[in-house]
Amino acid sequence: MTEFLKLLAPDAARNLILERIMPNLTAEIVDTENAYGLVTAEKITAPHSLPNFRRSTVDGYAVKAQDTFGASTSLPAYLKLVGEVLMGQETELEISPAECAKIHTGGMLPVGTSAVVMVEDTQRLNSNEVEIYKPSAVGENIIEIGEDIKSGEILISRNKKIREAEIGGLLAFGITKLSVLKKPIVGLLSTGDEIVSPEMDISPGQVRDINSHTLSVLIAKYGGIPVRHGIVPDQIDRFMEETEKAFRESDMLIITAGSSVSARDYTARVINSLGPPGILVHGINIRPGKPTILAICDGKPVIGLPGNPVSALVITKLFVHPVLQKLLGLSEPGLNPSIEAELSINIPSRAGREDWIPVRVLIDSKGLKAEPVFGKSNLIFTLVKSNGLVKIPVDSNGIDAGEIVEVIPL
Amino acid sequence: MTEFLKLLAPDAARNLILERIMPNLTAEIVDTENAYGLVTAEKITAPHSLPNFRRSTVDGYAVKAQDTFGASTSLPAYLKLVGEVLMGQETELEISPAECAKIHTGGMLPVGTSAVVMVEDTQRLNSNEVEIYKPSAVGENIIEIGEDIKSGEILISRNKKIREAEIGGLLAFGITKLSVLKKPIVGLLSTGDEIVSPEMDISPGQVRDINSHTLSVLIAKYGGIPVRHGIVPDQIDRFMEETEKAFRESDMLIITAGSSVSARDYTARVINSLGPPGILVHGINIRPGKPTILAICDGKPVIGLPGNPVSALVITKLFVHPVLQKLLGLSEPGLNPSIEAELSINIPSRAGREDWIPVRVLIDSKGLKAEPVFGKSNLIFTLVKSNGLVKIPVDSNGIDAGEIVEVIPL
Repeated sequence: MTEFLKLLAPDAARNLILERIMPNLTAEIVDTENAYGLVTAEKITAPHSLPNFRRSTVDGYAVKAQDTFGASTSLPAYLKLVGEVLMGQETELEISPAECAKIHTGGMLPVGTSAVVMVEDTQRLNSNEVEIYKPSAVGENIIEIGEDIKSGEILISRNKKIREAEIGGLLAFGITKLSVLKKPIVGLLSTGDEIVSPEMDISPGQVRDINSHTLSVLIAKYGGIPVRHGIVPDQIDRFMEETEKAFRESDMLIITAGSSVSARDYTARVINSLGPPGILVHGINIRPGKPTILAICDGKPVIGLPGNPVSALVITKLFVHPVLQKLLGLSEPGLNPSIEAELSINIPSRAGREDWIPVRVLIDSKGLKAEPVFGKSNLIFTLVKSNGLVKIPVDSNGIDAGEIVEVIPL
Repeated sequence: MTEFLKLLAPDAARNLILERIMPNLTAEIVDTENAYGLVTAEKITAPHSLPNFRRSTVDGYAVKAQDTFGASTSLPAYLKLVGEVLMGQETELEISPAECAKIHTGGMLPVGTSAVVMVEDTQRLNSNEVEIYKPSAVGENIIEIGEDIKSGEILISRNKKIREAEIGGLLAFGITKLSVLKKPIVGLLSTGDEIVSPEMDISPGQVRDINSHTLSVLIAKYGGIPVRHGIVPDQIDRFMEETEKAFRESDMLIITAGSSVSARDYTARVINSLGPPGILVHGINIRPGKPTILAICDGKPVIGLPGNPVSALVITKLFVHPVLQKLLGLSEPGLNPSIEAELSINIPSRAGREDWIPVRVLIDSKGLKAEPVFGKSNLIFTLVKSNGLVKIPVDSNGIDAGEIVEVIPL
C-alpha cells in the first residue's frame, strides 16, 4: 500500500492544477435577458452617453439657478411659468431668465435649465406664476448627459460574470443580444462494482450512485454543463474505453472512484493514459478527501474524487469549483462570503492536516452558534444535517468551544 | 406633497408585511434529481436503515477483535484466511475465532466480524494465512447498520429547501420522485409614460424598462417564477385593468412605479383597490428606496418599487427576498453570508435613516478593501461597478475609513 507517495498541502495542490489550465474558450450569441451567470466573450463599450438627455431627479420646477439666489419664505423669488414638461416626450420649452417650467422626476430638462427646485420649496400662485422659497445651486436635482456612463466608456469588460446589474446596464442601451463564452461541459463518471444507479433495487453489498447526481447539481450551480456518463465496472478494458469516450466529449472530466483497491488503481492508470502530463497530485493533506487525484491531460483537467459522498462534495467545493471558474474564462475569482458563529463544543484535530468539519449554524438568544456534526465521510446524512463547513488550518490542533469561527455556507 | 405621511423604520416595515403573509401552498411531484432549490411539501422518513448491511471503511481483513488483542510486529497474531469479500455482492463468508477474510473499502462484512484490520498493519504469509501486527478494538473500521440514518428517522422535514445533500440522501434510498411546493408566480408590471421596452428605439425624454428584466433574474434566483406583464401607461383605467389582470394571475405582484406624480398616485390607488387590507407601508426610512409601498391584498403580497434601478434592486434584495421566502413555504430563513472588508474612505450618513451604500470589494496586499461607489440611485452603472452593499445603521452618522465593514455580496 504505497498509494499516497506524498501528500501535498491543499493550497499547493490547488495551485499546481490551476496554473496549468489553459481554457479552450469559444463564444456564442445569447439574449441578454437570459445571460445571467454567463461570462462575457468581449468587452462592450457604451454606444452613446447615458442618459442622452438632461433629466430632473425630482418633481418641481426647472429654473435658472441664479434666479433663485437669496430666495426664502419671507422673500420668495417670483418666476414666470412657461409650461410643463410631459413625461416621455422631447420638450421644446426653453427657460429664459426669470422663467420656470413644471417638471416631473425623470423628465427632460428644457434648454436653459441650470437647476430644478423641488415642488416642496415652491408655491404656485396662478396659471403663470410660481413662488420659489429656497435657493438652488447650479446642477442641483439634475442628472447630466453621460452621468451614468459616457459614450465610449467600457460597459462591461471581457471575461466578466454577468449579474442582474450588467443585464440592466446592457438593456438600458437596447443591447438585447451579446457574445458570451460557451459553458464548459463537465463529464461525470462513477466507478465501482458495488455502485448501482439510484432507480435500481439494490442487494446487500451494493450502494446507489449518489455522487454523480449531487455533483451534477453543483457543476450546474458553478456554471458548467454536467453530463453523466454512468457507472463503469472494475474491468480495466471497459473502464479505459468508457473513460476515453467521456474525456473526448468533455472540457473537464470527474471520476468518482469506486472504493476497491482495483478501482482506485484503475482510476490512476486510466487518467495517466488520457494524455500528458497526466496526474499532478495524488493525495492531498486534507480530511475528508485525502485520496483526491488532480490531473491535466492534453490541456483538460481531470479530477479523481473519493467515492465517499461527504469527501466528494467537500473536494468539489474546494477544488472542482476553482478549476471550473478558470475553465469558465473568468478574469477574477468571485468573493467568498461566509458566516461568523460561535463554536458550541471543542473540535479536536491533528496538526499537519487541514480538516473541514460539517457544522449546523443555529440562531440562539446570543447570536449564531456553530454545532459540529461529527460523522464518518461515508455518511451523507452528516451533510443533510449541516449547513456549513469550518476549516481547521493545517497547523492547528483544533478549535475550542466559544471561539468565533468562519463558516463556509453549504 | 404629503406623499409620505410617515416613514417606517426598515425592520418594522418588513415585519409588518411578513407577519401577514399566508402562503397558498400547493404540492406537485418532481424528479428528485431536478429538485434542487425547491421546498419539500411533506416530511420524508427513512424506509429502511442506511446502510442496511455492515460495511468496512478500509481495505484489510475482517476479524474478530479479540483475536488481535496484544498483537505487535514482534508478536503478530496468526489468522486463517477463509476467503475474500467481493465488491457489490452479498457475502456468505463467516468469521469464526482465529479466522479472517480479505475485504475492501465498502465491502459487506462477513457474519461474525467485529473489526477490520487495515492492510498496512498485516502481512499475507501464504494463500491461507495472515499475520496481524496491531490490535483492533471492537467496531474499528466498521460502519454499522443504520449508522448513516435509522429506519423511520426523518430524512428531510417538511418545508425545507432541497440542496445537493438532500438530493444525495433521497437517492441513496432510491427515492427518485418527491412532493415539493409549487413555485410562487411573481407578476411584474412597469408603469410610466416615459418607459419603453428595451428592444425599442428611444427618443429624447424616454428611458428603457430595465427593472422588470433585472427583477426577473432575482425572482428566479430566489425561487419564484417571474412573469412580466409589460409596461402600462399613466392612464388610470388601463392601469387598473392591467394591474387587476396581472394580480389575478400571480401569487405576488411587483409594480415598478413610473416617476411622475400621477404614476405614483395611481400606483397607490390601484394597489388599494386590489383587495383588503391594501397598503400597509407607504414610505420607508431607507436610502435608496424611500417611496417603497408594501401591501397585502386578499392575502397576496403586492409591492410598489421605486422606478430608479438602484432603488429597485436594493429593495428587492432587502424586502422582496424575505417576502418571497415566506411565499415559498420555507420553515426557516437561510443564512446570510457576508464579507468583511476594510472601508477605504469615509462614508457620511444622516442619523435617523438606514443607508445602503454600493461598494467594490478589492483584494490588496493587506486583505480585502471596500471602496464606496457613490452615485445617484438612478444610475445603473453604480451597481455594475459594485459587488456588494454596506449598511449604515439608522442611528449612525457614517463610517470612518479603516473600519471593518460587513459587505452583503451583490
